[in-house]
Amino acid sequence: MNHNPVIVEALRGGIVESAHRGAYAVVDADGRLHSTVGDIERPIFPRSAVKVLQALPLVESGAADRFGLSDEQLALACASHNGEPQHVAAAAAMLAQAGVDAGALECGTHWPYRDVAQRAMAARGETPSALHNNCSGKHAGFVCLGCLMAGDGDRRAFLSGYVKPDHPVMREVTAALQASTGFALEDTAVGTDGCSIPTYAIPLRHLAHAFARVGTGNGLRPGHAAAAKRLRAAVAAAPFMVAGSERFDTRVMQRLGASLFCKVGAEGVYCAAFPEAGLGVAIKIDDGNNARACEVVMAALIERLLPLGDGDLDFVHRLSDLALVNWNGIEVGRLRAAGPLHRT
Amino acid sequence: MNHNPVIVEALRGGIVESAHRGAYAVVDADGRLHSTVGDIERPIFPRSAVKVLQALPLVESGAADRFGLSDEQLALACASHNGEPQHVAAAAAMLAQAGVDAGALECGTHWPYRDVAQRAMAARGETPSALHNNCSGKHAGFVCLGCLMAGDGDRRAFLSGYVKPDHPVMREVTAALQASTGFALEDTAVGTDGCSIPTYAIPLRHLAHAFARVGTGNGLRPGHAAAAKRLRAAVAAAPFMVAGSERFDTRVMQRLGASLFCKVGAEGVYCAAFPEAGLGVAIKIDDGNNARACEVVMAALIERLLPLGDGDLDFVHRLSDLALVNWNGIEVGRLRAAGPLHRT
Repeated sequence: MNHNPVIVEALRGGIVESAHRGAYAVVDADGRLHSTVGDIERPIFPRSAVKVLQALPLVESGAADRFGLSDEQLALACASHNGEPQHVAAAAAMLAQAGVDAGALECGTHWPYRDVAQRAMAARGETPSALHNNCSGKHAGFVCLGCLMAGDGDRRAFLSGYVKPDHPVMREVTAALQASTGFALEDTAVGTDGCSIPTYAIPLRHLAHAFARVGTGNGLRPGHAAAAKRLRAAVAAAPFMVAGSERFDTRVMQRLGASLFCKVGAEGVYCAAFPEAGLGVAIKIDDGNNARACEVVMAALIERLLPLGDGDLDFVHRLSDLALVNWNGIEVGRLRAAGPLHRT
Repeated sequence: MNHNPVIVEALRGGIVESAHRGAYAVVDADGRLHSTVGDIERPIFPRSAVKVLQALPLVESGAADRFGLSDEQLALACASHNGEPQHVAAAAAMLAQAGVDAGALECGTHWPYRDVAQRAMAARGETPSALHNNCSGKHAGFVCLGCLMAGDGDRRAFLSGYVKPDHPVMREVTAALQASTGFALEDTAVGTDGCSIPTYAIPLRHLAHAFARVGTGNGLRPGHAAAAKRLRAAVAAAPFMVAGSERFDTRVMQRLGASLFCKVGAEGVYCAAFPEAGLGVAIKIDDGNNARACEVVMAALIERLLPLGDGDLDFVHRLSDLALVNWNGIEVGRLRAAGPLHRT
């Protein structure tokens, strides 16, 4: 981490007010490096950026078909969502289709990420449940997988403790992560994520490789390749479900469709697949900033890696070099890609 | 900024997940360096960390006495507050005592910083005004100063545009900033702050020097020394008003009283005065993180610079080396002072 360069700058009054250092890898499905900045070999926790990899068993196992999951619901299984009413309803429906309810979720409870949604709930006199947790769709996917695995047994008894590394559900999820990244997870650092599942430290190079595989299917076993294709199509069909109102992932995929799949994770991580270019991307911001810094880097890489028409290029450039506006609507500075990503 | 060391680390699963670089200066009232880390000569925007310096004219001018401002109200003039009902009421009262209302404020409107306060307002069907802006107390102080300066003239006409650098009110505020820091503001970069007033780039060394002067009175002209003493006493008497529920500044000053005055600013800035030690502190986190990173550094410096009994030492150490807890209440990592600030 020591020598990663500045890749995002926040400017005010003509000077750099704050700066973010980080690293990224762009890799093809054969593992060849397309371009890199900083240390891409240090294992980092990918957090929620790899939800699509963790959702592969949901589809490959047949659970998604068994319980009739829709595109919206499959997109939610890959989501860090805003807790808006559509997200909450979709998570509840996934559980109901599998024959259980929100009591099965082990992700914990928090108020919706989106403040507008929080205030709307408060105005209705509501309080949050685990369904409002930004990870509720991923967990509903784990629960669906567990319900299939439970067979004719007691579903709730089987599901208990599904967030633990040695639970049969989590073993399947971890195996998919290992298969898609090609990184030996038994030998790496393991932490506990915000929603209580294990998170394994994986180098950016391997994460980018996994996303190149997800985008192309090359290097994945047939069941995973088919699952990745279906999950990408689901997110492209329902990009609102993967994040929500005013969120970067939703806005970019609403605009650019299936030409990319991108997903933010906590602590400054971002991963993406560019299927047509055959490339995968993984970004880590050293300081863990997962809003402004990651998004600017991802936008700058989209500008470089996707063939965009003028309108789309302008749309993306406004995300890699954007105005900072104060409470009176006055432009007070800019946030922009810097150093190796600076576009002159 | 290039060579500032890592001073805060976030750990998870036994490894460093994210890290914050930065610099700080600890200086006495004669300008002698007590201890420093990183680049303390580069001018940085102090943002809201210098509100106490910007409030000196409110007291020195006689406006605070003329309009009968209480300790709570003077503390609010130095605040970046949560927008809780007590803050909003105190800002409204300051304006009423000066004979104007919230229409005089030019800080812009936002929902309260504190989500609990937002939800309580939504439940009551309320929407925010400029009084809920975290800077409303500082602006109410500017308005009180302006009402005094307007004399027998039209107060609202005089006040119009008070946020502009060349308005008589802002000239007084800037002159106090220059006098207390000893830094030539006419030659430095100037930006626009979130609340629309100018923010001048000042090196950490000069900011720390200003806070040593504020803590001791040494090196300030008599009117500023008396004003600084009164403002510090007001904040020590009403620390809730300078920030609010669960906020670092409020918690630390509620616990440690007048032995320090500390104030956070946007983009990773923190300033403090330690009156008994005769020292001032100024911190800048490179990446602009003004919650977790700044607070950990400030707590680590309080541990080093203040003579604390066991109970207080334990209280402060829990702020410089703290558990990161997930949505299920599980400890998933730690946030701690690092590098030159690491306490073995």
